Amino acid sequence: MRVAATLLFCLMLAPVLAGEPLALRDMGSFHIGGRVVEISGRPVQEIVRVPGGPPSRLDPNGRFQVEQMYVQYFLPQNRRGKYPLLLWHGGGLTGASFETTPDGREGWLNMFIRKGWDVYISDAVERGRSGFAGPDIWKGEPVFLNAADPFERFRIGTGQGSYDPDPAKRHVLSGNQFPVEAYDQFMKQVVPRWLSTDDAIVAAYTELVDKVCPCVILFHSQGGAFGFKVAQARPDKVKAIVAVESAGAGQIDRAGALKGTPVLMLFGDNIDKDARWTAYHKTDLDYATAVRATGGSVDVIELPDQGIKGNSHMVIMDRNNAQIADIIQKWLASKGLVD
Amino acid sequence: MRVAATLLFCLMLAPVLAGEPLALRDMGSFHIGGRVVEISGRPVQEIVRVPGGPPSRLDPNGRFQVEQMYVQYFLPQNRRGKYPLLLWHGGGLTGASFETTPDGREGWLNMFIRKGWDVYISDAVERGRSGFAGPDIWKGEPVFLNAADPFERFRIGTGQGSYDPDPAKRHVLSGNQFPVEAYDQFMKQVVPRWLSTDDAIVAAYTELVDKVCPCVILFHSQGGAFGFKVAQARPDKVKAIVAVESAGAGQIDRAGALKGTPVLMLFGDNIDKDARWTAYHKTDLDYATAVRATGGSVDVIELPDQGIKGNSHMVIMDRNNAQIADIIQKWLASKGLVD
Repeated sequence: MRVAATLLFCLMLAPVLAGEPLALRDMGSFHIGGRVVEISGRPVQEIVRVPGGPPSRLDPNGRFQVEQMYVQYFLPQNRRGKYPLLLWHGGGLTGASFETTPDGREGWLNMFIRKGWDVYISDAVERGRSGFAGPDIWKGEPVFLNAADPFERFRIGTGQGSYDPDPAKRHVLSGNQFPVEAYDQFMKQVVPRWLSTDDAIVAAYTELVDKVCPCVILFHSQGGAFGFKVAQARPDKVKAIVAVESAGAGQIDRAGALKGTPVLMLFGDNIDKDARWTAYHKTDLDYATAVRATGGSVDVIELPDQGIKGNSHMVIMDRNNAQIADIIQKWLASKGLVD
Repeated sequence: MRVAATLLFCLMLAPVLAGEPLALRDMGSFHIGGRVVEISGRPVQEIVRVPGGPPSRLDPNGRFQVEQMYVQYFLPQNRRGKYPLLLWHGGGLTGASFETTPDGREGWLNMFIRKGWDVYISDAVERGRSGFAGPDIWKGEPVFLNAADPFERFRIGTGQGSYDPDPAKRHVLSGNQFPVEAYDQFMKQVVPRWLSTDDAIVAAYTELVDKVCPCVILFHSQGGAFGFKVAQARPDKVKAIVAVESAGAGQIDRAGALKGTPVLMLFGDNIDKDARWTAYHKTDLDYATAVRATGGSVDVIELPDQGIKGNSHMVIMDRNNAQIADIIQKWLASKGLVD
């Protein structure tokens, strides 16, 4: 009895100590959603799947499972978050963007587990472990990002032309918080994406919400275009939203759906130096105004206004990502979502 | 002092108790390997990345990072395995195949963490979170598996024609251990793969071995075609091999490379009912004979010979996967690899 009590005490204690072990009551994964598509009329092939191995039949006809979504979950022993916390990544990325940072520091996954949240990380439909469908099923080709693209678009470099193959010759925004020495490592986690799959992505996220919520959703960048839409469709299940540099907001004429869902919008630095982020920022703030007009609550944190300078679009992996996670945790606590 | 000692005691105790929390001293991920490819001469496009958002430039020219590999690691507090344990998945799958089973039971990832191994799970190049390259870079189209394909080829069903869209009409091998009621769920974790990327996959796995080994490698199915090749190239770094239904072996004329690396080959049931598995089985056993002829040690476990019947090709997620993990752990302990 005494051993059991001691064990319980220790396991409860572990996650709250910084740098201490992560004690999980469970972890695992599942795939959710998707649909089955029938293909017919194509010739059957014979392929060799492993060099030197026996040939086998490959039938490109039949029933294909597509548009499902991969979800990995980590449930801390000492749960403090009132609801599960869902982390939805940005465009051209997977859930891995919340894991270890490109320069090897802890990402928000570990941090929010340590803060006591049941964390669910997903790879949006067609990204990462969710798999992707063939050209018979999805329109268009996937989009591949070259090494210059995120550097110039994510407010790491000074804009178009700021990237150079030689790291020493790259033009970095002054005081930037992105770990630029690991930029090439960051590019290894960038994956292709389609421009025609938004409805499928929203459908799978909606199924996830139906399965694991009530919850808090934290989304980054493109994740916001999906996140606000899903939250508007399931406002009773989304107890709070943390929109980190959301590239897109909800529909203005449906803003009232979120009147009971507290929202935090958080932005990095140098927004005004980039026309695209200026546009997204305005879209988000216009939506915030519309939600507030219906009686909802939207808090906006512009990090530079708090004296926190130099954050890129990749706030989640910037050098001060722990500081930003603390700010988010404090906000969540202020909304009564942390026990 | 007493609290610290108690804490240490508890954290050491936790992983050895079945069903107890997983206590990790760390977890995280990284991408390794790959190369940069330059593309030129294609027209620059303008795209809208988020519906309603501002347009932006997409340059299909420039430097593209390709052929890197995603690796996720879980390091238990109470480490008992002498070396890290690398889990390499099979064809058309990702590292997720070692996580929760399609019917919701624990997979080998959790089991081997609980047994005290530092576990590294990877998604082979072009699968899952490793991302994939465009048609300018890789030859051929990816291969997509229809719902019938694994059912008929993985010794779940009785062979070609045994799959039916209606689960009630599927012809399952008698006494099969695969959780057939979750077969459609299993298909959600199947991803496309290319037939032209083997060298890139081997290169990334070799870099992983150079980074985290000495180690033990456990591979499944297609993972064996890569695993034996990598082990032959880095025999000093691979302290043991567990080949689970390996679809391919090493080169016979280089078998001597493994004379100092103990190998376990493990096979499920009904091999002789399928011409392809009969062929792979023979390839593996011929290689075992060659390794032994150079003084090496290869143990072969045919599960049916031990009275364990009905295992499909997907041993790692069959109903008795915990029993099989225990058999592997016992073998690893017999080789002095468990403290």
